[in-house]
Amino acid sequence: MRTERERFVVIGGVAAGMSAASRAKRNKPEMEVTVLERGKFVSYGSCGLPYFVSDLVKDVQGLVVYDATFFKEKRGIDVLTRHEVTRIDTQRKLVFARNLEKSKEITFGYDKLAICTGASPIQPELPGADLRNVFVIRTAEDGIILKDFIGEAAPSMAVIIGAGLIGLEMAEALRARGLEVAVIKRPGSSILKMFDDDMAELVEEELKRNDVDVVKNAVIQGFEGDSEGRARLVVIEGRSYPADLILLAAGSRPNSALAKQAELGVAPNGTIVVDERMQTSNRDIFAAGDCVGQKHLITGKDVYIPRGTTANKQGRVAGDNASGRDDVFKGVVGTAVSKIFDLTVARAGLSSAEAVGENYNFVTSTVAHPSHGHTYPNPEPEDITIKLVMDRRTGKLLGAQMVGKIGVAKRIDVFATALQGGMTVEEISRLDLSYSPPFAPFWDSILVAANVGLRKLLS
Amino acid sequence: MRTERERFVVIGGVAAGMSAASRAKRNKPEMEVTVLERGKFVSYGSCGLPYFVSDLVKDVQGLVVYDATFFKEKRGIDVLTRHEVTRIDTQRKLVFARNLEKSKEITFGYDKLAICTGASPIQPELPGADLRNVFVIRTAEDGIILKDFIGEAAPSMAVIIGAGLIGLEMAEALRARGLEVAVIKRPGSSILKMFDDDMAELVEEELKRNDVDVVKNAVIQGFEGDSEGRARLVVIEGRSYPADLILLAAGSRPNSALAKQAELGVAPNGTIVVDERMQTSNRDIFAAGDCVGQKHLITGKDVYIPRGTTANKQGRVAGDNASGRDDVFKGVVGTAVSKIFDLTVARAGLSSAEAVGENYNFVTSTVAHPSHGHTYPNPEPEDITIKLVMDRRTGKLLGAQMVGKIGVAKRIDVFATALQGGMTVEEISRLDLSYSPPFAPFWDSILVAANVGLRKLLS
Repeated sequence: MRTERERFVVIGGVAAGMSAASRAKRNKPEMEVTVLERGKFVSYGSCGLPYFVSDLVKDVQGLVVYDATFFKEKRGIDVLTRHEVTRIDTQRKLVFARNLEKSKEITFGYDKLAICTGASPIQPELPGADLRNVFVIRTAEDGIILKDFIGEAAPSMAVIIGAGLIGLEMAEALRARGLEVAVIKRPGSSILKMFDDDMAELVEEELKRNDVDVVKNAVIQGFEGDSEGRARLVVIEGRSYPADLILLAAGSRPNSALAKQAELGVAPNGTIVVDERMQTSNRDIFAAGDCVGQKHLITGKDVYIPRGTTANKQGRVAGDNASGRDDVFKGVVGTAVSKIFDLTVARAGLSSAEAVGENYNFVTSTVAHPSHGHTYPNPEPEDITIKLVMDRRTGKLLGAQMVGKIGVAKRIDVFATALQGGMTVEEISRLDLSYSPPFAPFWDSILVAANVGLRKLLS
Repeated sequence: MRTERERFVVIGGVAAGMSAASRAKRNKPEMEVTVLERGKFVSYGSCGLPYFVSDLVKDVQGLVVYDATFFKEKRGIDVLTRHEVTRIDTQRKLVFARNLEKSKEITFGYDKLAICTGASPIQPELPGADLRNVFVIRTAEDGIILKDFIGEAAPSMAVIIGAGLIGLEMAEALRARGLEVAVIKRPGSSILKMFDDDMAELVEEELKRNDVDVVKNAVIQGFEGDSEGRARLVVIEGRSYPADLILLAAGSRPNSALAKQAELGVAPNGTIVVDERMQTSNRDIFAAGDCVGQKHLITGKDVYIPRGTTANKQGRVAGDNASGRDDVFKGVVGTAVSKIFDLTVARAGLSSAEAVGENYNFVTSTVAHPSHGHTYPNPEPEDITIKLVMDRRTGKLLGAQMVGKIGVAKRIDVFATALQGGMTVEEISRLDLSYSPPFAPFWDSILVAANVGLRKLLS
């Protein structure tokens, strides 16, 4: 039986889910908004997990933006944690959830539904992957389990499987906790495959400077445990690495089982199919966040680039459209930034490998130029290395990658903005960027990169 | 008599001049390139002078990028310092210079000439302005004179006349040297008139926190000296401020006397008239840097916004065109950034006052949002205040102003890029900006500013 108030049910309460719920309630205060979250925590920054594990953030509450009580009391949103949705009945417009605390099933009727179920770490099918002290890092609970283990078991040797941003951020976190760390990367690419090899090499040097053992081209055969079921060894083609902490950080895949069960469109890569309005194949059901894909604004193709900031934007759009407004999420340019020890690495657009994959006729150029003026030596300027990928035919920027110690993070956003605006490298070379010795040299590294790139394009 | 090699003479060797000379020599190594500089130093960053006076930079050589010997030996450019050009004969294509060391006149023939004479501080016509210990800060020599004075005379009270970026940067420098500092601003606007009053107020609070006395709406009547001709008092409508160091920082005006003598076109505001190619009304004479104006890319009008980075870009274009290439300088969007004590202030595009002056139908919005994620409390995030000026008719951004402690400088460049690309506020709200807790919250302050601005635009 339908209540009189319009009902909006949101499955998942981390980033996209809470954005969708908050936005809908704000637009339409008379709407009944309910969030069902499987975990104990809502509205937290999972990107902050490395800083929780490193103990820069002492308590898990330090990751949380707002808790369930806040949403209930200040925003009038019902947030039910520890409620796992098991089934959606699109005919009767019902959601079936299990209260994990009480093992009780509850049914929720909806008028509009948003699926914000996020993603799960890829679990490699390896012998021993189910041993104890093999961890993943995705949810707040994962963080607590890992941090408690470090506190209680005092492990001394960690092996991280995977060398993407999360794997490397966790390498830093575990080094900060005093562990020896090896990072193991499967064959096929260098570390940080979203970067070109020459840029990734700068990061690899930084890892080595911080005594992280980087093992590339490694075919992992399995994990060996002790008599008590604890992993002790990572076995790689004959060699083996001792470990009393193994972290699986080999990427994530979208959680789309519920969407499949509800017979919504799901793409071959597992993302729930949505349009620009974040609407699924069922007009009353939206999906947003790490369980959906995005359109890449350079190639025009569908991609899967899960990011917290994208999830928030998509959630907001889903919430808008679920509450009678009309909004769209247009896509991404693949922007990313990460702090890895003393380096900041950042990228936007296409890497060389991606440009090859998309059959662009492109050219690249790389420069290293100081972060700021030598007349402000506090701190001393540090070189920023910038690599540009440029379309030879149109003269447009296709992508930018940056590695440096100072002033990298928001400089990549200039490239992201230029990419989104479809600017040519020549237009970038003419930008009126801010200058003052504490922040930039006369010629900002961005302009130097564009000037050198332009010469390469014209040659 | 003409030599066989083509001759390029550059008048002025600070920013634009050395860029023009270097670029021409690089393009055409067979060209004979001569730079005539009135001062002792070439190729230095005058924007670094506050950090030289504060003693963060110990020696004046720390401001210099390359010295005359470097240009001679490494680049094959003749650099003659202490050579003041007194006259240009455009008929015979001759430049007359005085060797200031030897009081000797020398004549240089040219095929192409570039005038890069910069600007001079505005000297207010006030009684006592010619007293000793009344200083200006523009050239490296000015910096040496002031720093020597501080070291030798140990002044304890400084009055700065003018509250623009240079005045306020110098207030910080003089506080760092232990002086009491008062900043005196004439009537007509708040401090930092390139910012709106509400943004300037945040800076005024910072000045007060750092014990800088800010005196606004002050009509200065003159300076009173002692029996030895040293200024001791700044007199303002009855009141007076004791001072043993007075710094005139009330802006600068273009040095165009030579251009006038040579009968080149000079605009009413004193800037030498140039086209996009930096060509003056005489086709063999170029001009660049603080002695010329720029086209404002938002309004399409001519403006005078002298900046070191603009001077370098214009000099490069002048050098290109003087050496047979074809290049243009399209204009500026009025980007500026400055460190003032613990604050960074930045702006791009039009302020409200400028938008009023240009008869835009505009709306503004202001937000304060954290610099980075609360899950990376090292350091703790600090709010960035962002004010947008938006065109109600087109929805385009007209200008942005930012004040904050962390992450301001290069964020303004995102707005500068968006302004140059003609983006709407809605397009800015869709930017795929970098996110990671050490560098940005989920919603970057730029996106929050755009979202709030968009609501204001649509209301």
